[in-house]
Amino acid sequence: MLVHRDTATTGVRDHYCEIQQFYAEHMQLLDSGAAEEWAATFTEDATFRLPTLAEPVRGRQALAAAVRRTHAELAAAGEVHRHWHGMLNVRAIGDDAYHVRCYALVFATARGGTPRLHRTCVCEDVLVRVDGKLLVRERTVTRDDLA
Amino acid sequence: MLVHRDTATTGVRDHYCEIQQFYAEHMQLLDSGAAEEWAATFTEDATFRLPTLAEPVRGRQALAAAVRRTHAELAAAGEVHRHWHGMLNVRAIGDDAYHVRCYALVFATARGGTPRLHRTCVCEDVLVRVDGKLLVRERTVTRDDLA
Amino acid sequence: MLVHRDTATTGVRDHYCEIQQFYAEHMQLLDSGAAEEWAATFTEDATFRLPTLAEPVRGRQALAAAVRRTHAELAAAGEVHRHWHGMLNVRAIGDDAYHVRCYALVFATARGGTPRLHRTCVCEDVLVRVDGKLLVRERTVTRDDLA
Repeated sequence: MLVHRDTATTGVRDHYCEIQQFYAEHMQLLDSGAAEEWAATFTEDATFRLPTLAEPVRGRQALAAAVRRTHAELAAAGEVHRHWHGMLNVRAIGDDAYHVRCYALVFATARGGTPRLHRTCVCEDVLVRVDGKLLVRERTVTRDDLA
Repeated sequence: MLVHRDTATTGVRDHYCEIQQFYAEHMQLLDSGAAEEWAATFTEDATFRLPTLAEPVRGRQALAAAVRRTHAELAAAGEVHRHWHGMLNVRAIGDDAYHVRCYALVFATARGGTPRLHRTCVCEDVLVRVDGKLLVRERTVTRDDLA
Repeated sequence: MLVHRDTATTGVRDHYCEIQQFYAEHMQLLDSGAAEEWAATFTEDATFRLPTLAEPVRGRQALAAAVRRTHAELAAAGEVHRHWHGMLNVRAIGDDAYHVRCYALVFATARGGTPRLHRTCVCEDVLVRVDGKLLVRERTVTRDDLA
């Protein structure tokens, strides 16, 4: 159980809005299929763990390739996905780095269709600052349906 | 593709919470059917573009009339709508004005019924400050099912 | 109709992120079944009103017992619930105390199943600070399907 407490005194408050803004940009890039720009919101050596993959995805090139593939499949199916991050539980870890445990939803809508709730997940990120910008260094996503 | 980047340095952070609070009030007024109070969160000459309308709705009177009509229909049907704005991507544009691109969900629940996801949308707003208060000057909503 | 207005000038902005972080911790504790830790985010004498209960739940012991019971039922059913608070409408009431009116969603996902929207609610809280920490002193939840 990785729920943080007592973060009010850790200086997280100053960065909470910045982290919210970061995720908004990050997810809008993802959902619009901007593969390279989205990959650039991770560090060069980032790892992304998913429950359906035996090994984590590593590095920007592999991350961008995965988004291009998924986005092409969705476009072919005439479907839009919207990723929502929420209930951001942020903890400062060291020097301008943050652990975030949040909930993640994916909504799916087909052209002419009825919107549906596609996934409920938990996302745990390590965010670090590189050249002034927040980037994801490590991500681990768990899916509630596979828990 | 209208995803913003590099906003961390634009002073948006100071206003991010205020914008979140603004949308909370704004949507609670809408969903409670407070037509005039809701219309007052737009500028006098505001425009509101919807994919199902050939022309934008213009001005507070027309906006309030639209809400009164919708709210009466929902009340007759015994249904409540809840508008959620999230993943707020905020960019400062000039002097205390903001462009916001965010996701919008509408949840619908009938008395005695099962809640359902009614709409997934993207909302783009221009917010300006008038007499100290943020107001919507332009809104464009797109629906994922009509994309 | 309990929608707040004109809060931009009340000093709420300084605490908006802290309140978001509070709810993130609070709901993650709830959904993970951490009954005592969750109950400790209420004041000793807190009241929690639900539309399905004739009397409010009072005090940490009763709150923790309710969560233990619910969590055991969900575990037996192989189901995970995720509580989302959003659209936080925050108003300062006196000395470092806050009234929050927000929307609340509950998503439910069974192991191997399809995620579903379980509840749409409105939550009204009075938050107070005790020994430096925000705590819930009063909570009233209404369910849209029972409205």
